[in-house]
Amino acid sequence: MTVTGPKGFRAAGVAAGIKPTGALDLALVVNDGPDQAAAGVFTRNVIKAAPVLWSQEVLRHRRLRAVVLNSGGANAATGPGGFQDTHATAEQVAKVLDTGAIEVAVCSTGLIGERLPMPAVLSGVDTAAGALAATPEAGLAAATAIMTTDSKPKQTFKTHADGWGIGGMAKGAGMLAPNLATMLSVVTTDASLEPDALDAALRAATRVTFDRLDVDGGTSTNDTVLLLASGASGVSPALDDFTELLTAVCLDLVYQLRADSEGATKDVDIVVRGAASEQDAINVGRTVAEDNLVKTALFGSDPNWGRIAMALGRAQAEIDPESLSITINGVTLFANGTTAADRSAADLSGRAIEIVIDLGVGVSTATIYSTDLSHGYVEENSAYSS
Amino acid sequence: MTVTGPKGFRAAGVAAGIKPTGALDLALVVNDGPDQAAAGVFTRNVIKAAPVLWSQEVLRHRRLRAVVLNSGGANAATGPGGFQDTHATAEQVAKVLDTGAIEVAVCSTGLIGERLPMPAVLSGVDTAAGALAATPEAGLAAATAIMTTDSKPKQTFKTHADGWGIGGMAKGAGMLAPNLATMLSVVTTDASLEPDALDAALRAATRVTFDRLDVDGGTSTNDTVLLLASGASGVSPALDDFTELLTAVCLDLVYQLRADSEGATKDVDIVVRGAASEQDAINVGRTVAEDNLVKTALFGSDPNWGRIAMALGRAQAEIDPESLSITINGVTLFANGTTAADRSAADLSGRAIEIVIDLGVGVSTATIYSTDLSHGYVEENSAYSS
Repeated sequence: MTVTGPKGFRAAGVAAGIKPTGALDLALVVNDGPDQAAAGVFTRNVIKAAPVLWSQEVLRHRRLRAVVLNSGGANAATGPGGFQDTHATAEQVAKVLDTGAIEVAVCSTGLIGERLPMPAVLSGVDTAAGALAATPEAGLAAATAIMTTDSKPKQTFKTHADGWGIGGMAKGAGMLAPNLATMLSVVTTDASLEPDALDAALRAATRVTFDRLDVDGGTSTNDTVLLLASGASGVSPALDDFTELLTAVCLDLVYQLRADSEGATKDVDIVVRGAASEQDAINVGRTVAEDNLVKTALFGSDPNWGRIAMALGRAQAEIDPESLSITINGVTLFANGTTAADRSAADLSGRAIEIVIDLGVGVSTATIYSTDLSHGYVEENSAYSS
Repeated sequence: MTVTGPKGFRAAGVAAGIKPTGALDLALVVNDGPDQAAAGVFTRNVIKAAPVLWSQEVLRHRRLRAVVLNSGGANAATGPGGFQDTHATAEQVAKVLDTGAIEVAVCSTGLIGERLPMPAVLSGVDTAAGALAATPEAGLAAATAIMTTDSKPKQTFKTHADGWGIGGMAKGAGMLAPNLATMLSVVTTDASLEPDALDAALRAATRVTFDRLDVDGGTSTNDTVLLLASGASGVSPALDDFTELLTAVCLDLVYQLRADSEGATKDVDIVVRGAASEQDAINVGRTVAEDNLVKTALFGSDPNWGRIAMALGRAQAEIDPESLSITINGVTLFANGTTAADRSAADLSGRAIEIVIDLGVGVSTATIYSTDLSHGYVEENSAYSS
């Protein structure tokens, strides 16, 4: 189950002809209410795609009737013409749903710098409107239609004992980075919450999930996470309960994104403890996550703590070499300023790798979700124009 | 010609048995004066190797009689015992040269976290002292003895019309990064300069050369550049003249380091213009240089300006998407917020690639020297423990 898991939502995924391959490439998610509360978080890249600029604007009203998403083109760096294309897409959705364009968010993903084939997009909207359904199959079609280099759709659905639930879909396989990763995600719930509460929950959940996925340091022009609430369950959960389940939903999607990221052969959790501040912990985790020498060592299943020490030593954080320790898959290899165990004691042959860096200078912590750097990453990204 | 190019210097490179392969692994450079002025710049990584801590300390006196360098082990993260090893090495050099250990700098490169085989190091010092010569062959042996994954020695010698010159050697093939790259370099001159002038010239030269080489973002624990002046030419050049030639020497070494860096198939100059400040220009250049999606596209000879725009959009700098332009190998592909030419117009089939990013918001500029990211990089760094 996915975005159609919660009550009050319909979805569709169709082949609009945007991708030359004829694959599914346009998705529509509709909130049938009774509520239409919405919240969103967007890329912090200063180069923002037209659909991001549009969706940020319509989200100011904190209501969304629908989200239309396309793969096959990012509509980024396309100038005023590109923005008009996004606007026209939203208008077309509004027309078929008998609502206003201001209630329609737009997401795009694919190659930067190319205009979208608008006749295909607009007729695709009509086709998608005719295919809308509240079924798992319709949700799967939507999750499939937003894929680019993803090898499989990402979707999740979790329910609360009080009779409401949260569903979600996501795409993203490269350009996965600090501040949202390259990624589109639509999350739906049939809980009833005010827009302010939705916004607070979404920011709290994404800052410890999507914001901490760091595969290659790239921050896309199109990153978007949208949260739509229908209220169809009739239940108004406590904000803490809602935020907890929403965080679990986002983390599930993050794990799926990481597992399917381009060329990844390792799932790497970088846990930073004992930091002077949470920002220090994040800075250390990201610096290690983005270091190519660390990443290639992990690809080679080499517990090379020296490279980890080298990498974190340039992070913007309070670091004391004497109080630092580095533990890989349960074996502390570096402590008290020198080797603590032979590196051969740490077994990195499996897919899951946990690196625990204890800075020993404070009490703050953060976990960054990352991968290794493999031949597959180089192959996919040197051959594919994205 | 190399460090033995200027008058007043002898060098040696020997196989001390530190490397199990029996390759050259210990170098000695001796300044026979009459001056013994010296200056140095060191890694900004907070995790500093023992020889860096030692050499920083002895450089406080701004005089050096000799530098001893070894490959086969970085002597980093080796605790108090590692520092004692460095001290003992300097004492041995002082003994054979009949001077004080405080006049001997030490540099090490190789695997982090392992103690050096000290009997081999100390007997190697004796062997090197016996092999000291002012010949090109001796300089080449020294440049060869400091290699790790380098495929060839790096050396240069440039002379001034007024009768003085500057020679240099360097090593470094991976972990090449902001703030010195992973790299050892010894630069010699027979010009006569006061230590303050030497220090000023070295800082001015390295900040636009070694500090702007960025292959993989890694900043080593051992980075060191030392400058030794013998005064043997009898000429005291103007500081500007000296700084100019020193910058040319450093840039020559940077080009050699880049060309031989692990797996590199492209020499990439990233020229940032029109920045609000020089720091902004550096930040943009480095962010683009370190972006794996940009680097893999360049490996594929793909003028993917969309990835460059994506990368620079997350740099800490004043950026206005509307005033930005991106030019690759002479063809402006992005300007005025949208595509300016079809990407196929830019030919990236050769080894040299110039990316000009004009931010259009100021007058500051900086050039970052970088490479692509290839299968060779992944191969070397997943197989080699360094």
